[in-house]
Amino acid sequence: MDTGLAEVTSPGMNGISRATVARLPHYLRLLEDKETGETISSDLLAEAAGVNAANVRRDLSDLGFQGTRGVGYSVSDLRSRIRRELGIERRRRVAIIGAGNLGTALARYGGLSKRGFDVVAIYDVDRNRIGQQIGDIEIRDIAEMPSNCEKGLFDMAILAVPASAAQSVAEALASAGVSSLLNFAPARVAVPDDVAVRQVDLSTELQILSYYG
Amino acid sequence: MDTGLAEVTSPGMNGISRATVARLPHYLRLLEDKETGETISSDLLAEAAGVNAANVRRDLSDLGFQGTRGVGYSVSDLRSRIRRELGIERRRRVAIIGAGNLGTALARYGGLSKRGFDVVAIYDVDRNRIGQQIGDIEIRDIAEMPSNCEKGLFDMAILAVPASAAQSVAEALASAGVSSLLNFAPARVAVPDDVAVRQVDLSTELQILSYYG
Repeated sequence: MDTGLAEVTSPGMNGISRATVARLPHYLRLLEDKETGETISSDLLAEAAGVNAANVRRDLSDLGFQGTRGVGYSVSDLRSRIRRELGIERRRRVAIIGAGNLGTALARYGGLSKRGFDVVAIYDVDRNRIGQQIGDIEIRDIAEMPSNCEKGLFDMAILAVPASAAQSVAEALASAGVSSLLNFAPARVAVPDDVAVRQVDLSTELQILSYYG
Repeated sequence: MDTGLAEVTSPGMNGISRATVARLPHYLRLLEDKETGETISSDLLAEAAGVNAANVRRDLSDLGFQGTRGVGYSVSDLRSRIRRELGIERRRRVAIIGAGNLGTALARYGGLSKRGFDVVAIYDVDRNRIGQQIGDIEIRDIAEMPSNCEKGLFDMAILAVPASAAQSVAEALASAGVSSLLNFAPARVAVPDDVAVRQVDLSTELQILSYYG
């Protein structure tokens, strides 16, 4: 495992390390493919996350789990514990800001729904786009975004706007009470400390890849 | 720092850890904003990468650098050493496979060129897209892709194809001698060990973000 495309600035930590948090989705992915009632070994979990079994045992011990030697961990217990830790034991509602090529691609991205994320709204400023559909979601006027967020329509947002618009949109979202932002715009955004931001940066990704190949 | 959106499978390591490799682009980003002749402290580098100064000193020591107490590191020396380590002391040529919404968004993504990456070709299967332009790059027939790669037009590729096409395109690229793949398709691809792959997974990203906000 490695740190990569994204980094996070966060409102607070509750004791488990960032590296552990980042491995949990990989463990969860594997656990979701298993049957309730099964057990799973630290070796399999390690392989899924690209770390060694000692890392896995330490991570899960931090969550309060001790595996049983020769038996492993309970799939259903571990799965629900990780979901709870990640805050996805309930479904999360996500808005996409920007209905250009990137926003459209993200809205059509397969696999979000089965991981617990529902794209509930897409916003744009362009009169020609507003009212059109992407899949079964209508593109809304960005002017509706703050009140939609305040009313609880969504609490996570993906920024797919031009770099020049990123900061003002992030501020509007923060003011409206959004809890987390995933920023695909190639520009850093500054938000209050109570909003978590992950910055996705393609050039960082290519530089890391360049090392390996 | 945390491991996140992407994970890498790699053809080999030369001694520095994956976590260190993943921090190098963050150090480099800061170094690129500094003047040749300046020095830089481990504290500033630590802030750029979201780690502590002891991590930075260990990372740079692994690259053969010892900072001078109260002075820091030479910006120009460190910058060229990191570029060399990442394999970007020369510019890298990148192809995008798939000229749909995602491929188009990636082709227009700002900031790649100044980080040393040139998008030199975009390929698609769709007759209606082939021959059209994205910026100043013409969309080529994917049938030309293997011979273009064999002739050295590019050596890195970004997969922006549907999940169902990802494996066959990855195999074609591997056969043609590509060295690294950045996979945005929501499907794992299996390639020979001498090809580095990074898998970008939006749902992993959102799960990590969900923990923080």
